[in-house]
Order: sequence, then structure tokens, then C-alpha cells
Amino acid sequence: MSNYLLILAYDGTDFHGWQSQPDARTVQDELESALGKLFAPGIRATAAGRTDAGVHALALPVNFVSGIERPTDVVMRALNALLPDDLRVMECRRVPDGFSARFNALSRTYRYLVSCEPVFNPIERRYLWHLPVELNWESVHNSLSLLAGEHDFTSFRGSGCVSKTPIRRMISAEAVFIGENRFALRFQATGFLKQMVRSIVGTVVEIGKGDRPVSDMALLLERPDRAAAGRTAPAHGLYFVCAEYPELFNE
Amino acid sequence: MSNYLLILAYDGTDFHGWQSQPDARTVQDELESALGKLFAPGIRATAAGRTDAGVHALALPVNFVSGIERPTDVVMRALNALLPDDLRVMECRRVPDGFSARFNALSRTYRYLVSCEPVFNPIERRYLWHLPVELNWESVHNSLSLLAGEHDFTSFRGSGCVSKTPIRRMISAEAVFIGENRFALRFQATGFLKQMVRSIVGTVVEIGKGDRPVSDMALLLERPDRAAAGRTAPAHGLYFVCAEYPELFNE
Repeated sequence: MSNYLLILAYDGTDFHGWQSQPDARTVQDELESALGKLFAPGIRATAAGRTDAGVHALALPVNFVSGIERPTDVVMRALNALLPDDLRVMECRRVPDGFSARFNALSRTYRYLVSCEPVFNPIERRYLWHLPVELNWESVHNSLSLLAGEHDFTSFRGSGCVSKTPIRRMISAEAVFIGENRFALRFQATGFLKQMVRSIVGTVVEIGKGDRPVSDMALLLERPDRAAAGRTAPAHGLYFVCAEYPELFNE
Repeated sequence: MSNYLLILAYDGTDFHGWQSQPDARTVQDELESALGKLFAPGIRATAAGRTDAGVHALALPVNFVSGIERPTDVVMRALNALLPDDLRVMECRRVPDGFSARFNALSRTYRYLVSCEPVFNPIERRYLWHLPVELNWESVHNSLSLLAGEHDFTSFRGSGCVSKTPIRRMISAEAVFIGENRFALRFQATGFLKQMVRSIVGTVVEIGKGDRPVSDMALLLERPDRAAAGRTAPAHGLYFVCAEYPELFNE
């Protein structure tokens, strides 16, 4: 059997997220349908993360297994010819038997883009959260710094989350300026609960606006209470950036 | 009477260009409909350039006249509340009586974005021309440099062009690298004929690919022949960048 790793990029706007669903257009269904044509029907693809409806991906690792061996450059070209133009295979390579893009990932990185400009070019409207307000940067930084470490993230867990445990280790959470009045909130963790990043971003923004104190972030981590978190930030500002694997699986 | 200048940005994807048309969604119609609600019905807006269907704008100057005087910050906010989200007013200010965004413009600048990457992130697919080939940069630069100066641009004139004369003065035409395998072709001229930039870009690309010699560019300028030019490049890579005015009209 051959184990293939794909690195996917997609525009989440018109997808109902990664995971296969009846009666909705999903990334997994589009990909598995193309794999069915190129290899054999019934191939299942495993992703390093399951993005929600509207969330974008810059480099999502996905693997699948097939008894058919094909050169990776041919696989990449053929899939890009079969896939719709809002979903692209950026890389394809062979990985060892047993490798799983999901279970071998050490961590995942997400990025959330925010523009605080009064107005901005509409070609970006589907790709960042437009929040024309002034934020207190000290509060934003301070609230993000409280997230590092192992915590019970129940307060930031979306309804319908199927994870066995709400415990995750946040490796880093930081705000990076990417232009005047623009910033990216970058999160790296061992894993994420459903809507966790968007719920954290919503809370950080409420703290940055001065609507609630920085200490609320510590409280939300200490006393799990979904109702006490901030409003979930919109999906279209969120990107799955990449996943990190043990040295063994890197080239 | 008050003369207002607006600086517009829009995502050209879902517009049938700037100019008002029956049975098609155009930027002018959307803007004039909003102006009709905010000021009075029947206001006509004049733009520095008429973009074609699918062409984007970063900062298109447009002016209109009304007997009603309103603060410019109120006009900007109210228009942005009335306009669809793929069309934004980035600036609004008062200009002297008699000023015309069209007739007083000394020059216009367009930019055409090309990616020669094998694959690229699909969130950019509507905003640049994907051309996964290798181009000869010396040929690209040399063919662009032949465009500077006053010429008869009939060879690059789209059908249905209503300009009185095909003579234009190209102030500059250059290729700028904006990342690995990505470049912008930037054109500044006193004015442009219909589809002139896209027709020039199509020709430059054929020269860069080695399909025709650099000397073809000189020939096309010397002997007007529409049929001899390259294929018109797609609209979605093109941006109206800005227009330049005499010192008098600047702040």
C-alpha cells in the first residue's frame, strides 16, 4: 500500500468546512471524489484539522492510502485538474506506512486576521474580520499571554464538539502586526476544540475594546463556563496555517 | 452647487464594469442609486476611467455635483452603509467648482498582476492571472520599454472603443517583481483605449514566452493592426490603481 501526503490550500468561503456531510459541499467530499476518479472509489482522506464552514486553509496536511502507486507529481497535477478552483493541492509526497496526518501531528497553527481600518479594499472582505474600532494593545497582548500552557478550554468549546477531552496545551498565542491597523492573532497548540480559536478571538477583542477586564481570560480558563466567553468571531477571518510533525516524517 | 470627489475601491468580479448599462450590474449604477438616496435622484457620477467587466479598482477618482451640502465624513459613512460590500468609498472630499475627475486627470495608472507559480493559494484566484510558465525577463523588459512615448495604440484597441483618437502618451510601462514567481506590470499613460492594457499584457506575455520576437512590439506601434496583437489577457488580473491631477486640485 502507498501512503500519500497532500498539502491543501482552500478558500473556505463556499465550503461547509472540511468534514464530509450529506447535502453540503465540503472539502473532504470534493477531495475524495477526485481521489475516487484518479485511484479507486472509496478512498478516505484524513486531515490534520477539521476546519469549520467558511474557514480557509493555507497548508492543511491530509493523507490517504491506496494500493495503486503513482508518481507524486502526476498525482498533484491530476488532482488539480479534477478539483474545483477554490481547492488546490500545493504539494504531494509519499510518507511511511502508518503515518497519519491527524494522529502524528504534534501541533497545529491557526491565524486570525483582523483589520481595524475604517474602510478597506473590498477584494479582502472575505479574508479578514473588519472591526473598525480602536483596541488597547496592552490588553490584547496580556490576555493572549495568559493562554500559554495546558488548560481546560471548555469555556471556548463550541456546541457539538466531539473531542474526548477539553484539555489542550497552547504552545504560543500572540498578536503580530501585519500593516497599519492590521494584525494577525497566531495560535499554536497540540490541538484545538471546535470553534476554540474564534471563541478566544471574540473574547480577546472584547478585552481589547475595554468591554471586560484582562483578568476575565484567567477566570475563563480556571472556571469552565461556555456562557461566560466572548462572542465567537466570524469564520472568514480564520486560516488553518500548518501542522507540525516529528522530525522522522520531515524530508 | 457642491462638487464632491470620491475615491472608490471595488472588487470587479461581480460588476459589469464601471459604465451604466441596462440589465447589467455596474459600479456607476450602484453608486448613482446610493447618491440618489443620500442627495437627490438623477445625480450623475463622472469617473477618471471606465473599467471593463471584471476589472478591479484600488483608488478610482469619481466626482459628482449636488445643490445639497453635507459634511464629507457623513457622505462617506452614509454611502458605505448604502453600497454593496464589494464597492467602498475610501475617501470623500470637496473639490473646486468645475473640477472633473475625468477631464482634469493628467494621467491614469493601471497594474496587472501575474503569477507564474505552478500552483498558488486559491484565495487569490480572482485577483491575478495564473500563468504557470517561464518567461524571459529580458524580453519582457525590452518589449515594455518600447511602449514609452506618444504612439498610435490602434493595434491594442478593443472593438467597440469610442475614443476619438487612438493616440496616447505612455509615461511609463514597467515590470515590478512582487514575490517569487510573481510580478506586476505597471502602466501610466495620459489615457487608455478600451482593453489597451490587457491587449498589451497579452502581447508582452507572448513575447516573454518566446512565441514572438521583441521587435513585434515596435511593429505593432508603427503599423496599426488589431489582428496582429497578442491575445487579450483576462480581466481579473487588472486593477485601476489611481489617477494623477494638477497640483491645484491636490490637498
